[in-house]
Amino acid sequence: MCQAHSNAACSHQRADAPVPEGEPVVHCLKEALQVSEQRRWVHGGHDMDFPPVPFPSNRVILITGEPLLRSVVREHHERLRRLPDIGDLFPRDNATFDKVVERIADFVVEACGGPSRYTEAQGHTCMRTRHFPFTIDESARESWLKALWSTLEDLNFPAEVREEYWAWLEAMSIRMINRRTTKEQPRRYPYSAMHIRAAA
Amino acid sequence: MCQAHSNAACSHQRADAPVPEGEPVVHCLKEALQVSEQRRWVHGGHDMDFPPVPFPSNRVILITGEPLLRSVVREHHERLRRLPDIGDLFPRDNATFDKVVERIADFVVEACGGPSRYTEAQGHTCMRTRHFPFTIDESARESWLKALWSTLEDLNFPAEVREEYWAWLEAMSIRMINRRTTKEQPRRYPYSAMHIRAAA
Repeated sequence: MCQAHSNAACSHQRADAPVPEGEPVVHCLKEALQVSEQRRWVHGGHDMDFPPVPFPSNRVILITGEPLLRSVVREHHERLRRLPDIGDLFPRDNATFDKVVERIADFVVEACGGPSRYTEAQGHTCMRTRHFPFTIDESARESWLKALWSTLEDLNFPAEVREEYWAWLEAMSIRMINRRTTKEQPRRYPYSAMHIRAAA
Repeated sequence: MCQAHSNAACSHQRADAPVPEGEPVVHCLKEALQVSEQRRWVHGGHDMDFPPVPFPSNRVILITGEPLLRSVVREHHERLRRLPDIGDLFPRDNATFDKVVERIADFVVEACGGPSRYTEAQGHTCMRTRHFPFTIDESARESWLKALWSTLEDLNFPAEVREEYWAWLEAMSIRMINRRTTKEQPRRYPYSAMHIRAAA
């Protein structure tokens, strides 16, 4: 049994690409190396799954207000900037950092039902493409998510819309990964599994 | 029309992950940002396709012989080592470089129907996993393939089995990519599209 197949999170699912009729298909390199009389195919597959991304409704901004959304983005990024593993992904220069944070806040506000400043200034954009210049592996995404969660806790993000907000960014963050270090699928962090700090 | 959908090589194909019944599904960020009364889903997908990999039959080694296969691996890697873009992926130290090349040659010989030295020494292995420590983007794969092709030409790799050898490594090399810099699928280099140098 090949390692790839004993692993439920294996990314080597069968793909649609064709294998010529009559030629054997094997499931891993070990089998491919063992047989040698004829050409044999290791089946196709694909890299990371990108789960559907639930964009929030405008309930989010109606309940949080724009200032809190902007504060969350700023505080989240202040925390990211201080992290030893991913802090270098953000501008060192304060003025540049501030501009980046404002742009991200514009995006978040618009996605949550607020004014369309982001689209007006940046045009139609692809977040995955925008992140390609920065090396983001699975672990960088996890650090990013952890800093987001603690920010939501510390800034008392309203419980009524916290799940909606979290579900959006937890799913979308997977699409920012562009450096793979494992064949496993990126870990999911469903809201129901997050530990919510007890009220004091 | 969203950029992702006007692009035939778009990696955002629909995936199996479920979207709750009755909630709208949109096809790109632009639409996701435009609608705001209810939560809306950007459909799932996946990153790179991994095409099936045709492992060669033992016709390859019967026709080339083991010494030529080993020479191809060595010459290929001597060329890779001198490339400015990916040369740094290989050991600078000659003794270490030689060991790496010998190990790769063992793998190639075994895959082509020769003795199983590689599996005996290294055990069952996953080539994608083995390459994770090294950052390999789409362009690094292309450099690797070009150096392979020129090596096959210069070492007069037998025409009868060159397609079988090339088809194997052209497909397998896609699985070594672990740093994405584009949403496009990795470019294919089918044997039929390769320019074969005219005999002198």
